[in-house]
Amino acid sequence: MSFELHPRLDADCFFIEDLSFSRLLLMNDRRFAWCILVPRLEGLTELHDVPQRKRNLLFQEIETVSRALINATGAYKINVAALGNQVPQLHIHVIARHQDDAAWPAPVWSAGPSEPYPPETAKHEIAVITEALANL
Amino acid sequence: MSFELHPRLDADCFFIEDLSFSRLLLMNDRRFAWCILVPRLEGLTELHDVPQRKRNLLFQEIETVSRALINATGAYKINVAALGNQVPQLHIHVIARHQDDAAWPAPVWSAGPSEPYPPETAKHEIAVITEALANL
Repeated sequence: MSFELHPRLDADCFFIEDLSFSRLLLMNDRRFAWCILVPRLEGLTELHDVPQRKRNLLFQEIETVSRALINATGAYKINVAALGNQVPQLHIHVIARHQDDAAWPAPVWSAGPSEPYPPETAKHEIAVITEALANL
Repeated sequence: MSFELHPRLDADCFFIEDLSFSRLLLMNDRRFAWCILVPRLEGLTELHDVPQRKRNLLFQEIETVSRALINATGAYKINVAALGNQVPQLHIHVIARHQDDAAWPAPVWSAGPSEPYPPETAKHEIAVITEALANL
């Protein structure tokens, strides 16, 4: 089956790049360096639905994005979560957290509505993350 | 190094059982069937710190707990998260979600303070989960 990004993820995020298994997105919320990995396999909803043969790769991509975010932002902590209560398509949040960010120490979902990037700032943030990925 | 459970996890949770890699806990919040996996490897804080050789096992344990919770509670969705902003010891939340639960569709951390189980109810919940694990 062909992969199609859920329209809600498409609306809420910017495309960064396609990794081997997952599409990497940037959440349109300038308060956080907040990436989302979407495995490009149609019909996945739960983390435990990821086929055995793809699990190492997914774990590796979570690590890759985590390390890129740490290098790019000096993150104090990485939050990783597969929730999906509102968007059924499996997606994994990988979020750089700082002790002075808008939600700390609560999870980012407790911090009220997102604050969209101004367009040029989003482009810059995507470039910073892309470079950090390339430099790993 | 010997494994020691972080005192905050010890205070907030009940022991269910030790799986091959992780200690399985029940969060003391009767509003949710909320399990926590704590890999029994001293010094882990980030998900990406889990050694390569243990990743399949951890993923398998997340699946095991997820399926047990689905079977035991009829969960509509499983939420999986490694946050650790408040407790540095790596721990993975595996939470059964229902469309009429106290936080739906928000993450459980948005639902205000936890509501402790009455002691007998906790024992019952632990027994239900233990049985669901045994019956997988």
